[in-house]
Amino acid sequence: MSLLTVGTVAFDTVETRFGKAERIIGGACTYISWAASYFTDQINLVSVVGDDFPQAELDAMAERGVNLDGLQIKQGEKSFFWEGKYHDDMNDRDTLVTDLNVLADFDPVLPSSYTDSDYIMLGNLTPQVQARVLDQLTSKPKLIALDTMNFWMDIALDDLLAVIKRIDLLTINDQEARQLSGEYSLLKAAHKIMTMGPKTLVIKKGEHGALLFQGEKIFFVPALPLEDVNDPTGAGDTFAGGMMGYLAGTDDTSFENMKRAIVCGSALASCCVEEFGITNLKKLKFSDIRARVDQFKALVNFDAELAETL
Amino acid sequence: MSLLTVGTVAFDTVETRFGKAERIIGGACTYISWAASYFTDQINLVSVVGDDFPQAELDAMAERGVNLDGLQIKQGEKSFFWEGKYHDDMNDRDTLVTDLNVLADFDPVLPSSYTDSDYIMLGNLTPQVQARVLDQLTSKPKLIALDTMNFWMDIALDDLLAVIKRIDLLTINDQEARQLSGEYSLLKAAHKIMTMGPKTLVIKKGEHGALLFQGEKIFFVPALPLEDVNDPTGAGDTFAGGMMGYLAGTDDTSFENMKRAIVCGSALASCCVEEFGITNLKKLKFSDIRARVDQFKALVNFDAELAETL
Repeated sequence: MSLLTVGTVAFDTVETRFGKAERIIGGACTYISWAASYFTDQINLVSVVGDDFPQAELDAMAERGVNLDGLQIKQGEKSFFWEGKYHDDMNDRDTLVTDLNVLADFDPVLPSSYTDSDYIMLGNLTPQVQARVLDQLTSKPKLIALDTMNFWMDIALDDLLAVIKRIDLLTINDQEARQLSGEYSLLKAAHKIMTMGPKTLVIKKGEHGALLFQGEKIFFVPALPLEDVNDPTGAGDTFAGGMMGYLAGTDDTSFENMKRAIVCGSALASCCVEEFGITNLKKLKFSDIRARVDQFKALVNFDAELAETL
Repeated sequence: MSLLTVGTVAFDTVETRFGKAERIIGGACTYISWAASYFTDQINLVSVVGDDFPQAELDAMAERGVNLDGLQIKQGEKSFFWEGKYHDDMNDRDTLVTDLNVLADFDPVLPSSYTDSDYIMLGNLTPQVQARVLDQLTSKPKLIALDTMNFWMDIALDDLLAVIKRIDLLTINDQEARQLSGEYSLLKAAHKIMTMGPKTLVIKKGEHGALLFQGEKIFFVPALPLEDVNDPTGAGDTFAGGMMGYLAGTDDTSFENMKRAIVCGSALASCCVEEFGITNLKKLKFSDIRARVDQFKALVNFDAELAETL
């Protein structure tokens, strides 16, 4: 099934305790699309870049089955640029530079071939831009997922609440879940957020894994303990892209399949963070992902039968 | 099999965002022993209190099968007292008062009936005191576990390293694992720590679960998402007590059984933190623990077979 992906395609400069990478390829939609491309070759990308964005990078995505008809290339303008430096804990980070450039007046226009996409992944963007994408759909998708962040809760809460009403699945991190719900317990927060529109909620906890909620059902996937985490940038988008790619590729939105989907997302994210940027995402084999999924299984699987002698 | 438990039996005053409890029963050995008592009734407790400690609390432990022959009751002296206040995140806490009292010159003396205990759980104490307990053992135990904290790494590292050499299983939290190993990656930290003596390592991550390492094998148990966490005090000791109680009760130190043991420990810890102090630990039924273990299973269990069509 087709997957519509919306978000930034950009340059990032990233510094972590393990090194610095300057003006590498980044952006939520880049990570989402590369991750999803392991599970489906019908990806409809919607984004905007300047004429400074390397054609070779676009060609590489096209070869993976990413349809770029919805990518606007603004002549004479520059692509979105973000620079950040991670704290030693590799979790918190400071944003040093945000040059919106082409993103400042981004108006997503869906080619007509996109408007009946089956699955929708709205990457983190202004809630109004996310809503504009939904406005252009001509048929009801099987699943609409949206990623957002605390910044929009701070400055555009009404717009965010309005677009959240229209979606099926929300992905946010633990602090954002607490902010959005006003509840400290993630269980209470989840139940409150699921009354705001989305029937399914994914709470991302970074190096501590992710929780999947749907009604009274809960599933947890840990993050895989890794020898080296070089760059956490894009881990959340890779997770979301892997999850939605798997759902679109299997065309099955049951809770059981969503479990597999977030394990696949976590497997991809665990590969992604081992190198800077999209380095690993561009070169994985499907067997690498299967092997990681098996590692997740081994990590959490146990025999629940307590000894009868007790 | 018999389980020797060593640590503090004390009074705590605890304040969290959900309330304040004054001079309630606390101490590592209290939590360890209550938790272990769900799985074995051969618990040999070693600790010290003053004459201010309520006899009814000791009677309640004795009824659960806790042998108190190794509990020193110092006439005219006061029990160890700790007062702390948790931050709103319920993870970090400030210690407001530490009155060592009887603990200041605690010399653990093992009754002769204790010296051939099968399983040993050394709760957090001065490393020298922990070593003194091991010195008195007359037969080699099946498993020696030790819990410690960053404080001893700061002020008594040599003593700590000396006692760690003599044990089989170490429990510490993630920050302590990083401090002890000098490695940020918990995987690298674990491998380094397992060269210091213990063949098995448990890294506790509080509300983010716990990791079990043995050689190249890894197992992860999450913390159960809860509606209400009222008081995290003693969660780590409850976890350790449940784990060691299960191992002693089943007399099986295989990695597969250790998985079940830390799930049992987590199940008990999840019950413990829902109320202040040992309130819940004193009144659980075994069926409550089984039900929690089933919840853990449901939380992480997934079908690893990825769709063949991909």
